[in-house]
Amino acid sequence: MGTYQQLEQHFKQIADFEHTMGILHWDHAVMMPSGSAAPRAEALATLSGHLHRLNTDPRIMEWVEAAAGEELDEWQVANLREIRRSYLMNTALPGDLVEALSRATSEAEHAWRTLRVENDWTEFQPRLEEIFRLTRIQGQALGEALGKSPYDALIAIYQQGIESREIDPIFTELEEFLPNLIQHALERQRSSGDMQPPPHGISTERQRALALTVTETLGYDFNRGRLDTAHHPFCGGATGDVRITTRFSEDDFLHSLLAVIHETGHALYEQNRPAEHLNQPVGEAMGMAVHESQSLFMEKQIAKSAAYIEHLAPLMRQHLAPAADTTDQRWSAHYLHRLITQVKPGLIRVDADECTYPMHIILRYEMEKQLIGGGMEVADIPGAWNEGMQRLLGLSTEGDYRNGCMQDVHWPSGGIGYFPTYTLGAVIAAQLKAAMRSDLDDMDGQLARGDLSQVKAWLRDRVWSQGSRHELQDLLLRATGKPLGVEDFKAHLMERYGE
Amino acid sequence: MGTYQQLEQHFKQIADFEHTMGILHWDHAVMMPSGSAAPRAEALATLSGHLHRLNTDPRIMEWVEAAAGEELDEWQVANLREIRRSYLMNTALPGDLVEALSRATSEAEHAWRTLRVENDWTEFQPRLEEIFRLTRIQGQALGEALGKSPYDALIAIYQQGIESREIDPIFTELEEFLPNLIQHALERQRSSGDMQPPPHGISTERQRALALTVTETLGYDFNRGRLDTAHHPFCGGATGDVRITTRFSEDDFLHSLLAVIHETGHALYEQNRPAEHLNQPVGEAMGMAVHESQSLFMEKQIAKSAAYIEHLAPLMRQHLAPAADTTDQRWSAHYLHRLITQVKPGLIRVDADECTYPMHIILRYEMEKQLIGGGMEVADIPGAWNEGMQRLLGLSTEGDYRNGCMQDVHWPSGGIGYFPTYTLGAVIAAQLKAAMRSDLDDMDGQLARGDLSQVKAWLRDRVWSQGSRHELQDLLLRATGKPLGVEDFKAHLMERYGE
Repeated sequence: MGTYQQLEQHFKQIADFEHTMGILHWDHAVMMPSGSAAPRAEALATLSGHLHRLNTDPRIMEWVEAAAGEELDEWQVANLREIRRSYLMNTALPGDLVEALSRATSEAEHAWRTLRVENDWTEFQPRLEEIFRLTRIQGQALGEALGKSPYDALIAIYQQGIESREIDPIFTELEEFLPNLIQHALERQRSSGDMQPPPHGISTERQRALALTVTETLGYDFNRGRLDTAHHPFCGGATGDVRITTRFSEDDFLHSLLAVIHETGHALYEQNRPAEHLNQPVGEAMGMAVHESQSLFMEKQIAKSAAYIEHLAPLMRQHLAPAADTTDQRWSAHYLHRLITQVKPGLIRVDADECTYPMHIILRYEMEKQLIGGGMEVADIPGAWNEGMQRLLGLSTEGDYRNGCMQDVHWPSGGIGYFPTYTLGAVIAAQLKAAMRSDLDDMDGQLARGDLSQVKAWLRDRVWSQGSRHELQDLLLRATGKPLGVEDFKAHLMERYGE
Repeated sequence: MGTYQQLEQHFKQIADFEHTMGILHWDHAVMMPSGSAAPRAEALATLSGHLHRLNTDPRIMEWVEAAAGEELDEWQVANLREIRRSYLMNTALPGDLVEALSRATSEAEHAWRTLRVENDWTEFQPRLEEIFRLTRIQGQALGEALGKSPYDALIAIYQQGIESREIDPIFTELEEFLPNLIQHALERQRSSGDMQPPPHGISTERQRALALTVTETLGYDFNRGRLDTAHHPFCGGATGDVRITTRFSEDDFLHSLLAVIHETGHALYEQNRPAEHLNQPVGEAMGMAVHESQSLFMEKQIAKSAAYIEHLAPLMRQHLAPAADTTDQRWSAHYLHRLITQVKPGLIRVDADECTYPMHIILRYEMEKQLIGGGMEVADIPGAWNEGMQRLLGLSTEGDYRNGCMQDVHWPSGGIGYFPTYTLGAVIAAQLKAAMRSDLDDMDGQLARGDLSQVKAWLRDRVWSQGSRHELQDLLLRATGKPLGVEDFKAHLMERYGE
């Protein structure tokens, strides 16, 4: 057996344990009885420890060095690159730091659940200080291993191939561009008259039937997946068994439906990764920004498009209000499109529309940069948050920590460096859509007929089936003919909200 | 850290991986989408391989020897005994035999699913020959390690502490006792007039609500468990997260309800194992015969008793037929009790009543003894089956393999030595009930009121909380004042069917 094959076997074993972990996590969120948390935590800790030993096995680098001299095809070379990177990241942190981070984040996240509800910044601050103290050390250690600044190294945990110097101009341009767009959209909304809230009181059963139909139409394979309900919608499970969840609200079916469509975007990427490399690092998705681009592609670029809503509106009426008059305007494509493209500046990121969402991200990104790189302390966060929200969206969070700097789980859970991937995902989604539109013949016509076959084939060829074969910029260059840029996203927003 | 603590830590790790395996198996049977079987099989194989390495770690016997010299309490001494036994069994088989058995059983079980439906013994025979050939080698190797005959060694996989020489007299006595009892019961049934079938067309929702109520009344803790539907009812999941399944049939709610009660008996044992030893071998259940005694205790000794049905009958009517007249005789305790204690000799073991069930087991046990120990070949099975069914129950299986020697999954899946545990479980359940009845004040009155508190406390003290502290005969001696015997089972059957 060649050395490369030994490496592959080792990572196949890792993939099997990750499969196991994925199913346990899904079960934890969807099925596990509430009194079973303690033994499950023990089992997960043992499993994590074993995975960590496999991922930091010192033979990996010996095998990588030896295999580099063997005759390898392009995928195998890319696999070595991914293995080397993951090994560097997995071995960069001393064991006691990993343990301290795990303990501190688990403690802070647990405390956050209560303290947020109680709007208690005073009790929260020391815990968050400990998280940022440890994360700075983490960023330092990772940065040394990867040859990056500490904050860029933290970003690389979630999305490799992009650094602050590439993100900064994109976010700066959005910060300049968005205020006028938002104003324009708000004025246009006012002048088009009041909207009624979406029809409500729609049973979970009807919504579930619609979700199953739409999800299947988008290409989700229920033969290798399932749709369940969970407290937070997510896409999880394991390779070859990709599961999505949502939450049905009888008062807001649109929110539930769009959440399912969003998770379906993630799931399509996972279900269509390259079959021959599924259990190797090169077969994995190319980072969280690209992942988010796929969920946002389905949610914002497809489901919220004026074209696709022509297909979706009658489907919604048939499933949710079969007794409704076909001339009932509340079920018309025009009305539903207005509903799902409303712009409304607000305090909460997860409720934000696509025009104001980047502002929430820019706020957090700028603060993270300084909190890790220097220039800001945790104690400064509430003031900076209020100032930032005033500046970016004209809203105050004075004294309102719950809906201000304590609203997200990311920081207490140690996910610093994650936020930018959300808006990078939106930017990438728009860039993919623009390229696709010029490649395909009458894409809007296809969407209006609910025919996604060419859309999916395009994404499968250029994104899903590529796994981690090409790094981010290379992937975009091959898919769209140009590197990451913000123009298509701006054009998309102009077209939908600015004209 | 003392050596004993090292051992404990090693087995705690094993318990965590077994937890993981338990949840994956449950998910496989209850949740997994059908197209995800292949990656799941890979993950399970990797997990099994890892568990096998942990279970056969050569340090275990070194630790056991060293720990035996340390100061240990009674539970710890019993834990060493269990660890030594499991190590001997896990290391007795050469790796290539384990692999060959795993491949052959998986192949034979898969083939059996089709061949049974097709009644095709000719194609099945060579596969079963391979299973028995390998199982003989397995029994030989295990027997050498444990100092037992090959067949006794196979029994010990499922229930330690009992051998053929103890089972033979019990089964011989039953074989003599049962024919008259069955005749008597059949005559009494005929003279009491025809029975209508149980009320049917009862919705799954109503049955599920009843099952949840009954299961909770029996003491199942839903805070650390759940009830779902699966193709075959089972009790599974993991330590601290014990899950039961059933199958609801609108045409036979009694069957579904009794299946849930049966699995609840298994689950109560698992949910009440000794808390301080949960992740050690000594904290595990004392074998499959004792496990079956707990499920049969709840199903046959409690749920089918004339006393408990007084409590159950109104509960059934309220849940399943709330509109029924309270004087409707089909929902009376008397009528329902007659229904669930009907005796009817038949070809299928899993459908058998408690009077004829042991005959099915005796048939299989006698054949297994000869198939492993000598005196019978696989080619002789169909003839011996037909002859045995004629002799024991007066029924022919001539040419009917599907309902004869091909009805069970146990042999193709390699579970040779398992069958006797079913009837041993029934015998143990009756012995426990008799002792309990003489210990408790007016047990039948308690059952009629649906008050199981003293019944459960008795079982918790004497069985559930004992884990594997005492071996089978010792456990029975402490719980009932005497070793395993068949008298209480005969008395139980006489009381219910013979008077």
